Amino acid sequence: MREVAVIGVGMNKWGELWEKSLRHVFTEAAILALDDAGIDKIDSLIVGCMSSGLFIGQEHLSSLLADYLGQVPVPAARVESACASGGLALRMGFIEVASGMSDVVLVGGVEKMTDVNGHEATFALGTAADQEYECYHGITFPGLYALIARAHMEKYGTTREQLAMVAVKNHDNGSLNPLAQYPFKVSVEAVLNSVMVADPLRILDCSPITDGAAALILCPVETARKLKKPVVRITASGMATDTIALSSRREITWIESTYQAAKRAYAMAGKKPEDIDVIEVHDCFTIAEICVMEALGLVEKGKGGKAVEDGLTSLHGKIPINTSGGLKAKGHPVGATGVAQAIEIVKQLREEAGPRQVKGARVGLTQNMGGSGGSSIVHIFERS
Amino acid sequence: MREVAVIGVGMNKWGELWEKSLRHVFTEAAILALDDAGIDKIDSLIVGCMSSGLFIGQEHLSSLLADYLGQVPVPAARVESACASGGLALRMGFIEVASGMSDVVLVGGVEKMTDVNGHEATFALGTAADQEYECYHGITFPGLYALIARAHMEKYGTTREQLAMVAVKNHDNGSLNPLAQYPFKVSVEAVLNSVMVADPLRILDCSPITDGAAALILCPVETARKLKKPVVRITASGMATDTIALSSRREITWIESTYQAAKRAYAMAGKKPEDIDVIEVHDCFTIAEICVMEALGLVEKGKGGKAVEDGLTSLHGKIPINTSGGLKAKGHPVGATGVAQAIEIVKQLREEAGPRQVKGARVGLTQNMGGSGGSSIVHIFERS
Repeated sequence: MREVAVIGVGMNKWGELWEKSLRHVFTEAAILALDDAGIDKIDSLIVGCMSSGLFIGQEHLSSLLADYLGQVPVPAARVESACASGGLALRMGFIEVASGMSDVVLVGGVEKMTDVNGHEATFALGTAADQEYECYHGITFPGLYALIARAHMEKYGTTREQLAMVAVKNHDNGSLNPLAQYPFKVSVEAVLNSVMVADPLRILDCSPITDGAAALILCPVETARKLKKPVVRITASGMATDTIALSSRREITWIESTYQAAKRAYAMAGKKPEDIDVIEVHDCFTIAEICVMEALGLVEKGKGGKAVEDGLTSLHGKIPINTSGGLKAKGHPVGATGVAQAIEIVKQLREEAGPRQVKGARVGLTQNMGGSGGSSIVHIFERS
Repeated sequence: MREVAVIGVGMNKWGELWEKSLRHVFTEAAILALDDAGIDKIDSLIVGCMSSGLFIGQEHLSSLLADYLGQVPVPAARVESACASGGLALRMGFIEVASGMSDVVLVGGVEKMTDVNGHEATFALGTAADQEYECYHGITFPGLYALIARAHMEKYGTTREQLAMVAVKNHDNGSLNPLAQYPFKVSVEAVLNSVMVADPLRILDCSPITDGAAALILCPVETARKLKKPVVRITASGMATDTIALSSRREITWIESTYQAAKRAYAMAGKKPEDIDVIEVHDCFTIAEICVMEALGLVEKGKGGKAVEDGLTSLHGKIPINTSGGLKAKGHPVGATGVAQAIEIVKQLREEAGPRQVKGARVGLTQNMGGSGGSSIVHIFERS
């Protein structure tokens, strides 16, 4: 397998972009990535998108986006693994460059979620769960994560305040990210007094509905070394699945797919959790970040809430998590999230993260997750 | 890049499978493929599916299908390129094995299309076209291909009867395929007198709405050589995109994406059109098969209709096309079609095609297409 590097990154301002359609949102981010890499032609395009069929009545994004980016006739693929679609696009692009099939691959992620009403959006997001055995009975995604949160609180003594502190930390970081959908701070009190969604989760425990896109340019490391920029290599890609329905799991507070994906990634890169300098995780709900910290081996099982309270994962803590603002503050256009996570890590390793910079970061990790953990994708990045 | 072989194929009986859900339809085909390969564990799963969101309200097929196939925690991906989703799954699986990332990859395709009504199915299929610039104005897929058919008739003198002969030939072949949705013969008169859908295309010019799945097991050629079976290698994978909207093309009768994908595939395998013994093409409408024959370089531009009339592409003709019955008779569960095409070619090269066998076939080709040609994928297979 050839070694793979990231030579370009691009992300537009996320939010409720009612004046732009999906093709425009995607093309903006893709052009920023091409400009960052200093190129205008690619060999292949891979885009992650969860549910453009339900959100905007459009599939066939391979053709649509290659066309609107002026890259016809390049090969193009759309990939999907629910909210991990962006991470999957990165993985497939990594494999394509590693294989030798293509040299320059544009990996993108996009979702246009605000053209439908709230009920329709909730239905579309519910398609990441088991339609026949979960959604049919009326549960939604906040409901599934509320079950996890309640169990974690009962089992490990995780507090309501600790959940809130995840949102506070991520909004602290997000307030330093001008591309974030909600670039402002929130307090523990604000979270605790916000509208109830699914007990114990309140609206400020939940990532928002977002329009947005993100893009990366990948190529072989030898090509990247010829450019006048720090070289960021992708040294591992680990993916794993788990049962789609939460009710089929042995332990709903343990995200086995993230554990398995991380195990593969650590082995591939020859790294341990303590070697990682900066991390982006899938905080679709505050409880998710806590469970993921445990599954990644960053803290002991059940100790995630306490670690957040102790400031371990803050911007200047021992293990900075979600310096970008995370899904919570930056926004969560589901197909774009996994790609945007990689952008934050690349910026950190290139020392281009401005006020969010983690000093001397050399090794970074992203963890992107589908549904309630039915799929997880972990990538490790190194500057060299 | 490692050389890749197909060591297992599986397809269930296609049709209106109201008593089975998508997960069951897929699992049936996948188990047949595992049995054919004589294995029960895989390293990775890639499934092509066009629009499970719109057809059955379920995305996240990576997790769902790995789960129901008992393969958790393997990595899994769903890929989509409209009606070429199955071919795309094969391409991504080929790249994954070639790269060295995975050794044994299950490539599947599935679509469950008959759980919605006709209007909903027409809308879902329309998402392969440009929603904003084509479907919004009321055109459907039969309408788009009717424009192509009318232009081909005007420009090259292709006759209404020649279109019908494509359906007649494919039903002749399909009558020999017990897994086909419509395993019976039709006459030119029956096609010409069938219900009008979009002038000049009648119902018997159109591929049907189908539930079905198909699966392949891929591995490195060295592994395949240890098994006691003829070795079928995939010697080329070519993909290309074109503008998604028909109105953006220079010449609507010419399928440029197929021409470009085939050019890449012929170069990769070191083959010419005349080296191919048996071919499966994307006959979503009768006119499509005629245009594709021309774009693949099998006949001169404009001569596709005449070639069908002369019997060139019949089971015992010089270039047998769609020996399986094609999309027309076998059925067209859109995500499964590209994988099923590969199954027919593998069976032909293994000399397991029974009454449909093309004598001495050693080199085969598949052509799978998204929308009105916005994407095309061509694979070449060789027995050795």
